[in-house]
Amino acid sequence: MNSILITGCNRGLGLGLVRSFLKHPSSPRHIIATCRNIQQAEELNSLAQEHANLHILQIDLKDIDKYEDFARQVESIVQDNGLNVLFNNAGISPKSTRLGFVKSDDLVETFVTNTVAPIMLTKALVPQLKKAAEFNASAPIGPQRACIINMSSILGSIEANSDGGLYAYRTSKSALNAATKSMSIDLKPNNIMAVVLHPGWVRTDMGGSKAPLSVEQSCTKIVQTVMTLSEQHNGSFLQYDGRQLQW
Amino acid sequence: MNSILITGCNRGLGLGLVRSFLKHPSSPRHIIATCRNIQQAEELNSLAQEHANLHILQIDLKDIDKYEDFARQVESIVQDNGLNVLFNNAGISPKSTRLGFVKSDDLVETFVTNTVAPIMLTKALVPQLKKAAEFNASAPIGPQRACIINMSSILGSIEANSDGGLYAYRTSKSALNAATKSMSIDLKPNNIMAVVLHPGWVRTDMGGSKAPLSVEQSCTKIVQTVMTLSEQHNGSFLQYDGRQLQW
Repeated sequence: MNSILITGCNRGLGLGLVRSFLKHPSSPRHIIATCRNIQQAEELNSLAQEHANLHILQIDLKDIDKYEDFARQVESIVQDNGLNVLFNNAGISPKSTRLGFVKSDDLVETFVTNTVAPIMLTKALVPQLKKAAEFNASAPIGPQRACIINMSSILGSIEANSDGGLYAYRTSKSALNAATKSMSIDLKPNNIMAVVLHPGWVRTDMGGSKAPLSVEQSCTKIVQTVMTLSEQHNGSFLQYDGRQLQW
Repeated sequence: MNSILITGCNRGLGLGLVRSFLKHPSSPRHIIATCRNIQQAEELNSLAQEHANLHILQIDLKDIDKYEDFARQVESIVQDNGLNVLFNNAGISPKSTRLGFVKSDDLVETFVTNTVAPIMLTKALVPQLKKAAEFNASAPIGPQRACIINMSSILGSIEANSDGGLYAYRTSKSALNAATKSMSIDLKPNNIMAVVLHPGWVRTDMGGSKAPLSVEQSCTKIVQTVMTLSEQHNGSFLQYDGRQLQW
């Protein structure tokens, strides 16, 4: 893999993914990490000072009209090799709410960040992904060629929902799953694959302190899973350790 | 079933459902049909002149801040018996778009109409549904007691997606499916059940002229399916003829 772009890297799983990709024996030549506020991303900045292959790009993913400009910045880094992997990691989770407390603004805001942004960023970066798929025409379908990974959650699995509630988060992630399935079909002729990933229950701001997995444990497994993605996984819903989940 | 409320009844499946429920041997005592513009709903108005049990209520479902007021209008019709069935039928479908043509505004607008509106209307009408569930405490779980039916589509089935595209419509319906599963769990203690329905491919403005089913064929089957819903169907995804679909 020559290049990977990961969104939402100032903390949590995004930062953990950057660390894990930096540590990997075949670390990508370009790791592009996005964050909303570069000044506040202290750990990410420290990492970038130690690792010349880590590029930090600033973007607030709600500014969808800036995606085209952002895509040009990405192009100036990856150049003719294109972008091998787009990892749409950034997301939000409003507080758990039962039906009686659900707010329409929460539903829309969460959908925009967790569903619309990954779809529109993918659309903006498809030219870079296509370039990578063509540039690596002799490589098998997968992250050595071109791949979209959308960070979903088991909470977006309708089949696995046994606790109810969480309307904003669940709807946004089920919707992202649906969009990813369409991407996996629409981009197949371009040799670009797409999957959704569930990171496990991780000790992040979102997962809370009682979660069984550390960020490092989850991200190490995710990187292993990403590195072994192949054509057979296209359009599937995998958890961090590669196990397949139901929609 | 004493009462049913159906949204989006000026044409298409909504109007067809009203006709089919009016024709049914055990037609509900109150059929409340909503539409955005009463003046333009000529066929619905004609039906209301012939059938005293048909009540037309005007509401633009995008006006979520009017739902509480709307719920009071429903209450004034159903009174102490409560509302047995809420049928969230209204929906939109933007033109088919591949990834390269998807627009963020389309994604959000479709999500608001097809997902947020049914969730928020359900929230507003839960007190009426609870009343019906309690009023009919001796009836089995189902439409004789209290039931939410959300009109989804096979296009919202991630498993069944083999054609890709349709980002706005598919994401909105997968999200509605996810929300319905949560409703089926959250409202179980109140003896209110919830399902999603796929109407089949129907000759409506949305389905086009090549669809194999007429509105009457689809709606006749849907009404049969609704009338036979029971506890075992809670939280499931059914098509018009009662066959279960995958998420």
